Amino acid sequence: MAHQNLAQQRLLIKGGKVVNDDRSVVADVYVEDGVVQQVGPNLNPEPPTGLVVLDATNKLVIPGGIDTHTHMQFPFMGSRSKDDFYTGTKAAIAGGTTMIIDFAIPQKGCSLTEAFDTWKSWADPKVCCDYALHVAVTWWSNKVKEEMKSLVQNKGVNSFKMFMAYKDLYMVNDEELYAAFSCCKELGAVAQVHAENGELIAQGAKKMLAMGITGPEGHELCRPEEVEAEATQRAITIANAVNCPLFVVHVMSKSAARVISNARREGKVVYGEPIAASLGTDGTNYWNKDWAHAAAYVMGPPLRPDPSTPGFLMNLLANDDLSVTGTDNCTFDICQKALGKDDFTKIPNGVNGVEDRMSVIWEKGVYSGKMDENRFVAVTSTNAAKIFNLYPKKGRIAVGSDADIVIWDPKATRTISAKTHHQANNFNIFEGMVCHGVPVATISRGKVVYEGGAFNVTAGEGKYVSRPPFPPYVYKRVRQRDIILYISSCCCLDGLRKAWKSG
Amino acid sequence: MAHQNLAQQRLLIKGGKVVNDDRSVVADVYVEDGVVQQVGPNLNPEPPTGLVVLDATNKLVIPGGIDTHTHMQFPFMGSRSKDDFYTGTKAAIAGGTTMIIDFAIPQKGCSLTEAFDTWKSWADPKVCCDYALHVAVTWWSNKVKEEMKSLVQNKGVNSFKMFMAYKDLYMVNDEELYAAFSCCKELGAVAQVHAENGELIAQGAKKMLAMGITGPEGHELCRPEEVEAEATQRAITIANAVNCPLFVVHVMSKSAARVISNARREGKVVYGEPIAASLGTDGTNYWNKDWAHAAAYVMGPPLRPDPSTPGFLMNLLANDDLSVTGTDNCTFDICQKALGKDDFTKIPNGVNGVEDRMSVIWEKGVYSGKMDENRFVAVTSTNAAKIFNLYPKKGRIAVGSDADIVIWDPKATRTISAKTHHQANNFNIFEGMVCHGVPVATISRGKVVYEGGAFNVTAGEGKYVSRPPFPPYVYKRVRQRDIILYISSCCCLDGLRKAWKSG
Amino acid sequence: MAHQNLAQQRLLIKGGKVVNDDRSVVADVYVEDGVVQQVGPNLNPEPPTGLVVLDATNKLVIPGGIDTHTHMQFPFMGSRSKDDFYTGTKAAIAGGTTMIIDFAIPQKGCSLTEAFDTWKSWADPKVCCDYALHVAVTWWSNKVKEEMKSLVQNKGVNSFKMFMAYKDLYMVNDEELYAAFSCCKELGAVAQVHAENGELIAQGAKKMLAMGITGPEGHELCRPEEVEAEATQRAITIANAVNCPLFVVHVMSKSAARVISNARREGKVVYGEPIAASLGTDGTNYWNKDWAHAAAYVMGPPLRPDPSTPGFLMNLLANDDLSVTGTDNCTFDICQKALGKDDFTKIPNGVNGVEDRMSVIWEKGVYSGKMDENRFVAVTSTNAAKIFNLYPKKGRIAVGSDADIVIWDPKATRTISAKTHHQANNFNIFEGMVCHGVPVATISRGKVVYEGGAFNVTAGEGKYVSRPPFPPYVYKRVRQRDIILYISSCCCLDGLRKAWKSG
Amino acid sequence: MAHQNLAQQRLLIKGGKVVNDDRSVVADVYVEDGVVQQVGPNLNPEPPTGLVVLDATNKLVIPGGIDTHTHMQFPFMGSRSKDDFYTGTKAAIAGGTTMIIDFAIPQKGCSLTEAFDTWKSWADPKVCCDYALHVAVTWWSNKVKEEMKSLVQNKGVNSFKMFMAYKDLYMVNDEELYAAFSCCKELGAVAQVHAENGELIAQGAKKMLAMGITGPEGHELCRPEEVEAEATQRAITIANAVNCPLFVVHVMSKSAARVISNARREGKVVYGEPIAASLGTDGTNYWNKDWAHAAAYVMGPPLRPDPSTPGFLMNLLANDDLSVTGTDNCTFDICQKALGKDDFTKIPNGVNGVEDRMSVIWEKGVYSGKMDENRFVAVTSTNAAKIFNLYPKKGRIAVGSDADIVIWDPKATRTISAKTHHQANNFNIFEGMVCHGVPVATISRGKVVYEGGAFNVTAGEGKYVSRPPFPPYVYKRVRQRDIILYISSCCCLDGLRKAWKSG
Repeated sequence: MAHQNLAQQRLLIKGGKVVNDDRSVVADVYVEDGVVQQVGPNLNPEPPTGLVVLDATNKLVIPGGIDTHTHMQFPFMGSRSKDDFYTGTKAAIAGGTTMIIDFAIPQKGCSLTEAFDTWKSWADPKVCCDYALHVAVTWWSNKVKEEMKSLVQNKGVNSFKMFMAYKDLYMVNDEELYAAFSCCKELGAVAQVHAENGELIAQGAKKMLAMGITGPEGHELCRPEEVEAEATQRAITIANAVNCPLFVVHVMSKSAARVISNARREGKVVYGEPIAASLGTDGTNYWNKDWAHAAAYVMGPPLRPDPSTPGFLMNLLANDDLSVTGTDNCTFDICQKALGKDDFTKIPNGVNGVEDRMSVIWEKGVYSGKMDENRFVAVTSTNAAKIFNLYPKKGRIAVGSDADIVIWDPKATRTISAKTHHQANNFNIFEGMVCHGVPVATISRGKVVYEGGAFNVTAGEGKYVSRPPFPPYVYKRVRQRDIILYISSCCCLDGLRKAWKSG
Repeated sequence: MAHQNLAQQRLLIKGGKVVNDDRSVVADVYVEDGVVQQVGPNLNPEPPTGLVVLDATNKLVIPGGIDTHTHMQFPFMGSRSKDDFYTGTKAAIAGGTTMIIDFAIPQKGCSLTEAFDTWKSWADPKVCCDYALHVAVTWWSNKVKEEMKSLVQNKGVNSFKMFMAYKDLYMVNDEELYAAFSCCKELGAVAQVHAENGELIAQGAKKMLAMGITGPEGHELCRPEEVEAEATQRAITIANAVNCPLFVVHVMSKSAARVISNARREGKVVYGEPIAASLGTDGTNYWNKDWAHAAAYVMGPPLRPDPSTPGFLMNLLANDDLSVTGTDNCTFDICQKALGKDDFTKIPNGVNGVEDRMSVIWEKGVYSGKMDENRFVAVTSTNAAKIFNLYPKKGRIAVGSDADIVIWDPKATRTISAKTHHQANNFNIFEGMVCHGVPVATISRGKVVYEGGAFNVTAGEGKYVSRPPFPPYVYKRVRQRDIILYISSCCCLDGLRKAWKSG
Repeated sequence: MAHQNLAQQRLLIKGGKVVNDDRSVVADVYVEDGVVQQVGPNLNPEPPTGLVVLDATNKLVIPGGIDTHTHMQFPFMGSRSKDDFYTGTKAAIAGGTTMIIDFAIPQKGCSLTEAFDTWKSWADPKVCCDYALHVAVTWWSNKVKEEMKSLVQNKGVNSFKMFMAYKDLYMVNDEELYAAFSCCKELGAVAQVHAENGELIAQGAKKMLAMGITGPEGHELCRPEEVEAEATQRAITIANAVNCPLFVVHVMSKSAARVISNARREGKVVYGEPIAASLGTDGTNYWNKDWAHAAAYVMGPPLRPDPSTPGFLMNLLANDDLSVTGTDNCTFDICQKALGKDDFTKIPNGVNGVEDRMSVIWEKGVYSGKMDENRFVAVTSTNAAKIFNLYPKKGRIAVGSDADIVIWDPKATRTISAKTHHQANNFNIFEGMVCHGVPVATISRGKVVYEGGAFNVTAGEGKYVSRPPFPPYVYKRVRQRDIILYISSCCCLDGLRKAWKSG
Repeated sequence: MAHQNLAQQRLLIKGGKVVNDDRSVVADVYVEDGVVQQVGPNLNPEPPTGLVVLDATNKLVIPGGIDTHTHMQFPFMGSRSKDDFYTGTKAAIAGGTTMIIDFAIPQKGCSLTEAFDTWKSWADPKVCCDYALHVAVTWWSNKVKEEMKSLVQNKGVNSFKMFMAYKDLYMVNDEELYAAFSCCKELGAVAQVHAENGELIAQGAKKMLAMGITGPEGHELCRPEEVEAEATQRAITIANAVNCPLFVVHVMSKSAARVISNARREGKVVYGEPIAASLGTDGTNYWNKDWAHAAAYVMGPPLRPDPSTPGFLMNLLANDDLSVTGTDNCTFDICQKALGKDDFTKIPNGVNGVEDRMSVIWEKGVYSGKMDENRFVAVTSTNAAKIFNLYPKKGRIAVGSDADIVIWDPKATRTISAKTHHQANNFNIFEGMVCHGVPVATISRGKVVYEGGAFNVTAGEGKYVSRPPFPPYVYKRVRQRDIILYISSCCCLDGLRKAWKSG
């Protein structure tokens, strides 16, 4: 089977079980022009010539994964993350992910639009699959507000991230958060937060160093999980005050996840994103006797030492208390990590994940019996597409959808290792994990870009994907609540005013 | 527009917004032979002659409602519920519901199969829309077990209800529950429970009467919500011990709902069914000064006096902590209720709901901003179809699905009243509720059976719907857990045995 | 019976049931020099001449109440609270309270010591019972730190309050909170917080006014209970980061109380203080049709509209999830409240309570069966004495304790009313409440200052009470944790360092 | 120092810190006739001759421990527990415990009174310290009811235990529980439950054996913690239905403890008793590779494999969510345990604890900083005395109290080991635990029975302690609630009746 020049190829995936988030059905999938044209039994698209056929018998045919959280070639903490948009997206493809959403992050005082343009200029020539960009709001002014509007209206951005940590670098205070959330709400964007109390981290780090704790374990000790839970609670409270939908990135702890779940029960529009790392490993690694090993796990917020954390998060993910999964993929190799050899606050924060996310979630989620294959599709792809307004172009295998498809062998196993992975760094936080469930072929916009271990990609082949504002999945309720609030406050006011006048 | 002889009619629904549980899209829907043939923009099915066209511009086109819990013409407490399968299903249709699932309930010691046959013989000549039957397990023996098997394999039954209340009448004890759950699990059926501690109710009722409390408020006082929460917790614990999926019927209280939500967070396979009554009204009515009013609300478990209950349950329903909605429709008129004039324990238990469920949920759920139209479809139709293995034949508007469709006007309003409803009894527990959201036409298997207030139905037109065992939505995880449990216990055992031998 | 010149009188309380927090026992109490000398059956102190005898048969003899939270003659919001230290403490005495703790509150930038001196100069000539002063920290600098130290070491202050609300007036940010908590910890003081998110209140108030909501209901609408719960969570998190004990003043909502309870379950050293207002009435009053009525209830944080709030708080108080009770007594009359006639943000915040606290808690707590008389003593007196290091001088009737004693008739009833109360303002938020449980005599330092409705007091008779730092009830655990943390971090560090060196 | 013939000795404990549950104070304690006569500084009791003086400088002087849960020489599971009332109480004394409460347990159908008499006849000649007896209700009839009444009125019994587990042996069903709780309530007794769902255990055990799991780990696997939590919830619900105070013995799991805590927050009168085993070790031991080790930990309910269980329970104990501590001391040696070599259901259930309870709680509770010395006294002694109506004769060092006193060295350490303990069996579940906090002398009714490792006891020296019904600490609230319920139901009924008549 040869798939040269597949860009506009006609493709037939035969005999697989097509898995969407609502059900699975054995069916063929026919693709032309990068788009799914037919889904059904026994398809025989004409003409048979020029048709590439993939046999998916006994395999699953699933929507390509969407990684909602990556940082490729990110200049950070005196270094730059090792995976660039080329190696990063190539690794993604090898793992069954066909779209990533990265972050454009301006320095305080700098232009959001310029940051967006910069990141886009880095990505466009390199990406091997589709991508989009969240933009960070790291300070506040009228100019920022104007730029947010312009990014939404002209650049296809519908999500903005605010940092509650990284004091003096990216952190915004409550007043700024309130302003940013208000602006997101007005523009129909999804507000995102990195939820950690930056003040407590700053103080805690100082204290640790003063106590002589300089190793990677200090990273976790100075920001225990209540620091994450507190900020999560605060962000939800502020967002709710302006009726703005909120997306909490990298949920790392049981207590933060509980805060989100409880808020959802109360009807708040909030989404939680656990990541491959928090679902697949834990913070006991910070006490590993090998410094390099321990340092390799340093990320913010940290992994948690409670070993029941991953299972707990997976339960909530299975139950839709948590909604989507990313990776916070931001790789640094051992040499880069060594910047913090004598001071954990200088260890560049970040871990891998973009390649292994799908396998880790299959193993810990599906193989373990916590979720079925349909929920797997929901949390690795569909829900992300819905929240960021890409659905059903992305996140579903249906007539008219983009042909971002993975053929998944649920019976095969592979062992994760830095020796065999396709990422740029020399360490893998999931080293040695045996995963049932292996992507055997990945199709991006109708082209077979990865199959049986071999790539067929060109840098820059992926496309930037615009995301329109006001995702209906997120905003329908939000808008109706505004209407109801308006109506009820009018009524109530009228009643009281009359009473006071006559009283 | 005239729709005579519509049984095999060809139908085009034009210009509406088709609402499924995952998204909404403006599209036409073309129906033939009772099945959806096409969904898309600007359909022009050939030939145009003989085509019935319904204009749905500015309206929603939604899957017909599935009421998972009714008791038509139910012989109960010395009386028989007023709505039979004819008036009951006619009222359903008027309200936008196109399928009901009723309960066949044998007396202790009696045959389940005979009960099933009896109920079916009542329903078949009368039903105006599709229906199915849950079967109750009110006692235990090998014969019961055999009959369960036969009902699953030969009669299309995939759910069995056990009562934890109604001591001496229907109640089974923990040992019987365990046996029934085990059997359900083996057969691939969904176990259902009426979760109340029957012992406490029996004792409580005696105590109330002894204190001289004989009115309807005694009904609630002798079975406070912890009596429901306790049984819910117990049922979940027992079901989990045999890894059997559980469906808790009529969730009436905040505390029982909380028990279910918490169990789901822990990964237990349990579904909660709030009902129109618990979502739309509350138990303060038991203290109404008009005895007939108070008695009209008597049902088991009772509505709760805490007025924040309906909103709380709706929040959980919106958030998928609760999954589907029924009604427990079991109507008795004032004369029947008067059997308990001097003793609340003799008031026949039951309320209306089959007609108003869709409107009540729209009003309290969608109009209020707690859920959007897609979640509305999920909780009124799709999830029921998934859990009881009818999906996507029922619960979705898609090519190949049964044409059970409702045209819903989200802007229109109607006021619920016993004076105008189509149910057989002379009281409506939602009397006076103004509902935004009105069903303007109802289509059952492709026939317009209700439109603009007029019916076009014949008794017996509905069909009994067989439900195959092992619904994938429910059982995929369950089966995988069995596999994992088996594997891990083998490994673990081996390890220990070796150690003990060598030790 | 005449009690002239009682200052050094010898007093025998005969035949009452002496109620301490651990048990009740029928016993006589003999007092001399303002101190309890004997407690036991059938006391016959010699000589019988000059002995004042109070008959307490069938009555309870309880430790005088300690109100942990008052604001007498407080200059606030353009006005000054109506009750000064004379009328305020007189009212206290009439209600069975024999000690208050008021707050000295400096403006931002001003000296804490001067504030303390000012308040003391107001109080000393006026107080009719013992008192102490908490001091507020409304800004931060090295000078503030120095002054805190001096207040602790020289002025008998062992508690400091920080405001998380009143933006630009008293509010401190997280960095300042961290510093203040650290300082409290070092000095052995109890950190107190007014826990509301001041930023959200400021924004919410603006929004309400912009919507045209100017009445008292706006006060609650712009600071819903999650604003209180969020700040409570944040304060606990920050305090815990420095292992500083925390006292949350005026707990007003179920959600804030739940935050405190949960933190206590996790072992955090935190105390919650509900107040007479939050235990005895609720926020539905803000929607009263009479503006003056509604405005009279305006305080910060507001009372909550959920009518189940008082019962919920009382349950937690009964169960030691909440610890002590104050009043936030800060009375303004109708004319003062009218400053905010057209703008709720200008209504002076404050309600009464110092006189009625004991009766309200008895009625809602003891008479209702939620707590017994011993727990009543704990929450009205003993626990306050323990937390603020006054125990067992205050808070207990035992040999050696101050003779601050109340004779309480648990069978008598009285109706609370502004017409009969002894406070300075013309409104009572508990108007009309019938209270079982009436103080029939109040003894302050051995002198009968109130009996049968008549006072026998002189302004200035009360004394300022010094409170030493490091209350053992609060600090024993705190100190031990520091020791353990130190030991374990040394061990842990050593282990890792060795590993890294050898590794 | 020699203390021969100390029975009526005069004793002076000098210079220690006397620790009661409310505070600590340096004071001497003077004892005569087995009762505390004086507590204060610098006591010099006359005459100095014949006075035994114990120097307690730098030591704590605490009330002797009360172990609320032991089974000495208990005939059980085909064996008899190894520690009889002699070795058991001797070990108790060595550990700082001066009173135990054992259980008299009749077979189903047998007389409670006879069981009581039998146990008493076993204990009286052997006990080395004071003791009392709970009585189990293992079946129900009018005779049982009569015997309960007689035991309360004539034998000083005020507590009855019901088993929800041990199907067919001791287990009672819900109807019997209801009856037993009602009877306890009427008599003023405290109802106790062994809370596990016996039905699930029976079924689970069968399943495990069928799967080939025969080792000690099967014991835990067939009764996971939700089996305990379910029964706890059920018992609380039933007890609350009759307003009967409930005492849950041996709280072993986080989930059961959470059920109790939540119930307490809602105002239910329920007490939880964790035990030395659940506070000091965990269920990972069931997977120990040494069968004898694993079997030694078998008890019911089992220890939990979650290693965070002991810390969690200790936090709740510190916070008064749990109230008192026992041990369920019921020792079997390895040979006895071997009865279940091939079938875990035959391993005699039981562990040690009576000797080590005080040290374990000090180490894990006080030394760890979770509670202070005063709370330690509360949970090891005072609260038990209050609940079982022995206070302040027991549980406090005060004038008039029994001189059951321990001199405790908080600085000393000892290592727990079967080699050095005083219990009869050859295994200690706390083997190797280093404990700070050592009892250096134990005084029982004024006699120094243990000092510096040496005993001075005679079998039978302890006394049976009668416990009067209606402990005020427990029953004051309960009774007031009955009164209020009665009043309010009268009012409510009247109102409704009038309405219905006039309506």
